[in-house]
Amino acid sequence: MEVKQIKAFGTETAEAPLNELGIQRRKPTPHDVEIEILYCGVCHSDLHQARNEWGGTTYPVVPGHEIVGKVTSVGDHVTKFKVGDLAGVGCMVDSCRECDHCKEGLEQYCLVGAVYTYNSEEKHLHQQTFGGYSESIVVDENYVLSIPENLDLAAAAPLLCAGITTYSPLKHWNVGPGKKVGVVGLGGLGHMGIKIAKAMGAHVVVFTTSTSKIEDAKRLGADEVVLSTDPEQMRKYGNGLHFILDAVSAQHDINAYLQLLKLDGTIALVGLPEHELPIGAFNVVGMRRNFSGSSIGGIAETQEMLDFCAEHNIVSDIEMIDIQQINEAYDRLLKGDVKYRFVIDMASLKEPA
Amino acid sequence: MEVKQIKAFGTETAEAPLNELGIQRRKPTPHDVEIEILYCGVCHSDLHQARNEWGGTTYPVVPGHEIVGKVTSVGDHVTKFKVGDLAGVGCMVDSCRECDHCKEGLEQYCLVGAVYTYNSEEKHLHQQTFGGYSESIVVDENYVLSIPENLDLAAAAPLLCAGITTYSPLKHWNVGPGKKVGVVGLGGLGHMGIKIAKAMGAHVVVFTTSTSKIEDAKRLGADEVVLSTDPEQMRKYGNGLHFILDAVSAQHDINAYLQLLKLDGTIALVGLPEHELPIGAFNVVGMRRNFSGSSIGGIAETQEMLDFCAEHNIVSDIEMIDIQQINEAYDRLLKGDVKYRFVIDMASLKEPA
Repeated sequence: MEVKQIKAFGTETAEAPLNELGIQRRKPTPHDVEIEILYCGVCHSDLHQARNEWGGTTYPVVPGHEIVGKVTSVGDHVTKFKVGDLAGVGCMVDSCRECDHCKEGLEQYCLVGAVYTYNSEEKHLHQQTFGGYSESIVVDENYVLSIPENLDLAAAAPLLCAGITTYSPLKHWNVGPGKKVGVVGLGGLGHMGIKIAKAMGAHVVVFTTSTSKIEDAKRLGADEVVLSTDPEQMRKYGNGLHFILDAVSAQHDINAYLQLLKLDGTIALVGLPEHELPIGAFNVVGMRRNFSGSSIGGIAETQEMLDFCAEHNIVSDIEMIDIQQINEAYDRLLKGDVKYRFVIDMASLKEPA
Repeated sequence: MEVKQIKAFGTETAEAPLNELGIQRRKPTPHDVEIEILYCGVCHSDLHQARNEWGGTTYPVVPGHEIVGKVTSVGDHVTKFKVGDLAGVGCMVDSCRECDHCKEGLEQYCLVGAVYTYNSEEKHLHQQTFGGYSESIVVDENYVLSIPENLDLAAAAPLLCAGITTYSPLKHWNVGPGKKVGVVGLGGLGHMGIKIAKAMGAHVVVFTTSTSKIEDAKRLGADEVVLSTDPEQMRKYGNGLHFILDAVSAQHDINAYLQLLKLDGTIALVGLPEHELPIGAFNVVGMRRNFSGSSIGGIAETQEMLDFCAEHNIVSDIEMIDIQQINEAYDRLLKGDVKYRFVIDMASLKEPA
């Protein structure tokens, strides 16, 4: 199989900072789309995997799964894209396509295991997949998204992970008009959750530990903001919410939030805290409440989310960086010092190292 | 308000054994039914509350909420019962009747708080309610159940708590033909769960820690029995079950069972472990699984369950005791030494103490 040598940014070990390295991409096969990467969002998973915090990272690793750019070539059988189109790639570049979940458009729950955009096994070259911190990417057209022209392209990049990860559970649990929805954790995921829940027509209640975030939560669309450290304020919302989107990736008290759910309400985790979360039996038995979780979204649903965001003019709040600033950005990410997503201007990778 | 003095069995303190004591019941008001108690099941909650293990017990406490007997008198406005009818009382004797949940027939989730059969505030006499370890009980007809004539009366008593507590979640989560359902915890609740899930048409997989229970689980209706201490057997069921009824009231590993659920599957807790249960985020996020719980069932649903059991000829497996054996029965309950429910022959209370 023909390959192409391209520039990327990644690391050879869990301890080393990211730096420039060379990787190989396959040349487009008949069903592939080649995309010149213009912007790539920086997700907390990038950092987790670069540093092998979830285990199982294969090195070198090239992170990045919030990819937007322009189509530069297409295989002979490609029908959905042509050269010059805006295109995006999210967390998956392939899946088995044959299991019940893939057939239902739930590729993120592929029973064989989806092929993730980085640190998975690439089916053609049998090397690990490499993500969006790179000049270009080659992906089967069925796993490529169309980016609506009316959205700011750089700010649309985070929709490919943060957008779909919040849209999918909000949709699955029927968030909409007449529903009171809580959002916990005002970061990359949480700020998208607020915007999308609001656009879906829900009454949005944001929970934060920090008074400094109250005004910003309102600017993002929150109808109410609750200081979660104040038991008095929390009590007022007891049995009051239909659904809670929990975007906290650190240890936190799920029980305090379970108690805010109405009968049959659900709290869905989209962050991935490292340690187990203790749940009190009375908090689920009492009002038949559910503690659940949700992983990104399927390909068709990702396109649906992008079209929804285009219609409601929703993008991420971003801070643009050059690829050379990525290590500093990771340090700031760990401190929660970003409003609300770093996006890499990939033109910076073309500059001499 | 006129009262009647009757004999009961209860305790004045958390430490003392249960013994005979006198209590007052109101005389039937126009909407009340008076029931001579013939049999009363022994639920683990009886023991928890007699010993104040959940806190909040008001003494003296007279436990018992699996009550069956004969109607001995009815108030002037009672339409559903007449003298001589078989009648039952479960965990609730009243609720606010006005909140959204009561109006939907979900009195167990009454937002004001249901009036439980014992250790709640009685609305008429403003004393605590007293349960079924007694000669008779007076209950508003709307909270009294009809016991089908074809069921063995003593063995039907546990349906009023163990029966409805397992029927309600099995119904709520749509257990039926084509569904693979797990039952964890083969005790008073679990053995009813097996019988009811099987009668609903599901394929029932029972999980037990003890090889000695395998044959009995099959006799009760299990299609398959899995030794939960054997990782090899457990792995075979990964992503394999639609629903799991978790009837374990001690600390146990929820994560091992979450991993057995299919996409969107639910594990519903009906036991009430004292300590919090730690849940790993990946186990809910990975397949959008739900950790949930369920509390008894509404009054109309309890009648529906009784009629369902009558149709399928389902009762509890019981061991009959005299009321004088209740303390010994509690000791055996703590050791799990009962197949599967103690039922008190209340005729024994009439004997001289």
